[in-house]
Amino acid sequence: MSEGVEWALHSCLNLSWVESGQAVRTATLAAFYELPSAYLNKQLQALARAGILSSTSGPRGGFRLARSPEAITLLDVVTAIEGPEEAFRCDQILRQGPGGDAETDYRQTCLISQGMRRADLAWRRELAAQTLADIKSAVERQFPAAPQNTRNRLAALRA
Amino acid sequence: MSEGVEWALHSCLNLSWVESGQAVRTATLAAFYELPSAYLNKQLQALARAGILSSTSGPRGGFRLARSPEAITLLDVVTAIEGPEEAFRCDQILRQGPGGDAETDYRQTCLISQGMRRADLAWRRELAAQTLADIKSAVERQFPAAPQNTRNRLAALRA
Repeated sequence: MSEGVEWALHSCLNLSWVESGQAVRTATLAAFYELPSAYLNKQLQALARAGILSSTSGPRGGFRLARSPEAITLLDVVTAIEGPEEAFRCDQILRQGPGGDAETDYRQTCLISQGMRRADLAWRRELAAQTLADIKSAVERQFPAAPQNTRNRLAALRA
Repeated sequence: MSEGVEWALHSCLNLSWVESGQAVRTATLAAFYELPSAYLNKQLQALARAGILSSTSGPRGGFRLARSPEAITLLDVVTAIEGPEEAFRCDQILRQGPGGDAETDYRQTCLISQGMRRADLAWRRELAAQTLADIKSAVERQFPAAPQNTRNRLAALRA
């Protein structure tokens, strides 16, 4: 998985603490963790395409969450950045095996493929069961200063 | 995940159908699915290092399963090929955040990292719950000709 997933998850969490309605520029979100702005921007654009962030232009433009943290799962963010492909790559080598058939979709019939898919589904289920709101409230319980610290740093970087 | 995982899983399954004690050369295992021999050999060597296959040299040498299919899980094979790293890459960007601390191991304390790890564990658990013996017997139930077809093709390729 690319480093972009970590950047995207933390950026979404930071945006969940921004005063509502306020957009944050890529440069500010990047400076928050000293990330390369151009590359972070690619991740933010991907999140916008997936409907997780919305982007506005102009002097007060930038990114904000496009929906509530309750409606954003870890799976949504991972899929936005990494795409919907399964981790296991099935190239259907059974086509070249004995009795292999060019018409058969071995991604469906191959029992090895099915076993790997079962694990992939367990992973997705677990990611889908955790929302940004869950993470947000867990962080707020454990690190009560985090929201205000985040807003303070964003304000300082914006200035 | 690399294509090597698919090759390794199918090669292990094929080796589970070989008359016991018989070793199969890389070239034969590769020809079975028309795979590039040199690259498959890297995967077979990795499986041998992980104690899943054993390798012998000499005119009757090659690879065989080093332990019974009941004692080989999908996770063993995936880990042998892909390494033990988690799919999610945590570069601890919180170190650069407000109050970030160079001494803290954020892979442990960061709640985003923990959430991602929960999904990784679900994936591993599911892979660890499936053995080569499970796959083998499921294939034999659904495709009863598979073991003999496999032995026949291996014999033909060996000749």
